[in-house]
Amino acid sequence: MREGFHTQLSRVNGTLVTMAKVVREAMRQASGALLTADHTAAQQVTVRDAEIDVLYRVVEDRVFGLAACRPPVAGDLRMVLNMLQVAADLQRMGDLAAHVARVALRRHPVPAVVPELADLFRAMSAVADELAAKIVSALADHDAVQAAQLDRDDDAMDDLHRKLFTVMLSPQWPLGVEAAIDGALLGRYFERYADHAVNIGHHVVVLATATDRLSSAAGASGPS
Amino acid sequence: MREGFHTQLSRVNGTLVTMAKVVREAMRQASGALLTADHTAAQQVTVRDAEIDVLYRVVEDRVFGLAACRPPVAGDLRMVLNMLQVAADLQRMGDLAAHVARVALRRHPVPAVVPELADLFRAMSAVADELAAKIVSALADHDAVQAAQLDRDDDAMDDLHRKLFTVMLSPQWPLGVEAAIDGALLGRYFERYADHAVNIGHHVVVLATATDRLSSAAGASGPS
Repeated sequence: MREGFHTQLSRVNGTLVTMAKVVREAMRQASGALLTADHTAAQQVTVRDAEIDVLYRVVEDRVFGLAACRPPVAGDLRMVLNMLQVAADLQRMGDLAAHVARVALRRHPVPAVVPELADLFRAMSAVADELAAKIVSALADHDAVQAAQLDRDDDAMDDLHRKLFTVMLSPQWPLGVEAAIDGALLGRYFERYADHAVNIGHHVVVLATATDRLSSAAGASGPS
Repeated sequence: MREGFHTQLSRVNGTLVTMAKVVREAMRQASGALLTADHTAAQQVTVRDAEIDVLYRVVEDRVFGLAACRPPVAGDLRMVLNMLQVAADLQRMGDLAAHVARVALRRHPVPAVVPELADLFRAMSAVADELAAKIVSALADHDAVQAAQLDRDDDAMDDLHRKLFTVMLSPQWPLGVEAAIDGALLGRYFERYADHAVNIGHHVVVLATATDRLSSAAGASGPS
């Protein structure tokens, strides 16, 4: 029974890793679409977003299946809840990638990001990609150390976000209202993407600790 | 035991109702602060936001306490998860009220909302208040019908949100970049607030159905 629970937990975790990879790819494509006005890439993000929503349902169903197989005691409950929260954060990150893609589509064939802001958004999308890469490997390896580093990348995102507003609000800003509104909303999407990544980092720390606990408990009682 | 579980569930629900009331008050104050440049009201929203975070922890602790008392089977698990998700949505609504208040503080003593947008934001804050009021009573009465109506109010919010952009992007917009950026971000905060309210509506429908099920089960087996 304990073995079955373990196996099912790691299956849920496997789905989270897959979800994280798709989310990473979605934001890479959305960022590319944004900076190069690539219509096809922007449309593919919408497909990926739907894929992410399906994966979220898979995680939810597996968690409930797991509870049906063995009603979770408090420690297990915290663990499965953390997994559901990771899935919910990944789903929101997918939504945010889709928001970015939609801005690209709305302005197509003109690039939605004006040349004055291109370097900043290139940097923001690099940080977003770095965060997503760390989430993939932190989830895959139950790596609490890697998960804890996500806070630092989030600081980098916050700095870029502040710079963005400094540029748009300077008296030299030559580009009027529409470009500034796009810039402000895009900035917010990237910032929220990073916030959700940080949330996931915190959940992975809890999961990694709980997994250690479960493994030692299984080791102590031997195979059942 | 079943009685104990019931009592604890309704205690969690009571905390959710309290949370929803505080969230409603926070957004009322934030909206007031925004439209009248009321510094004191804006600062009080920050206090309420901290209060909401504490209430979120209370819900979480009670849910885990509940699981410790009786490991939840699949149906119960879905119920407590829904309660946690309601709490998480309320917490985000509190954050969004705080974001609105921060915009008011940043522009004080000048009102953050320019006269050209005041009517729109007055309407958005009225819809936000209507949504929060419905959440309070839907949670208090397990009212699935009321909960299902939240979608309609959200449509009203989306309409206002679209109008906001039409005004700011019209060639007649006289107010430059800063007012437009504030408008775009504030619009997004109100829109997200409404989205979370709709999420809560969906969770309340599930909760109301599950409560009916629990009550008939308790009725069938008699007091234990």
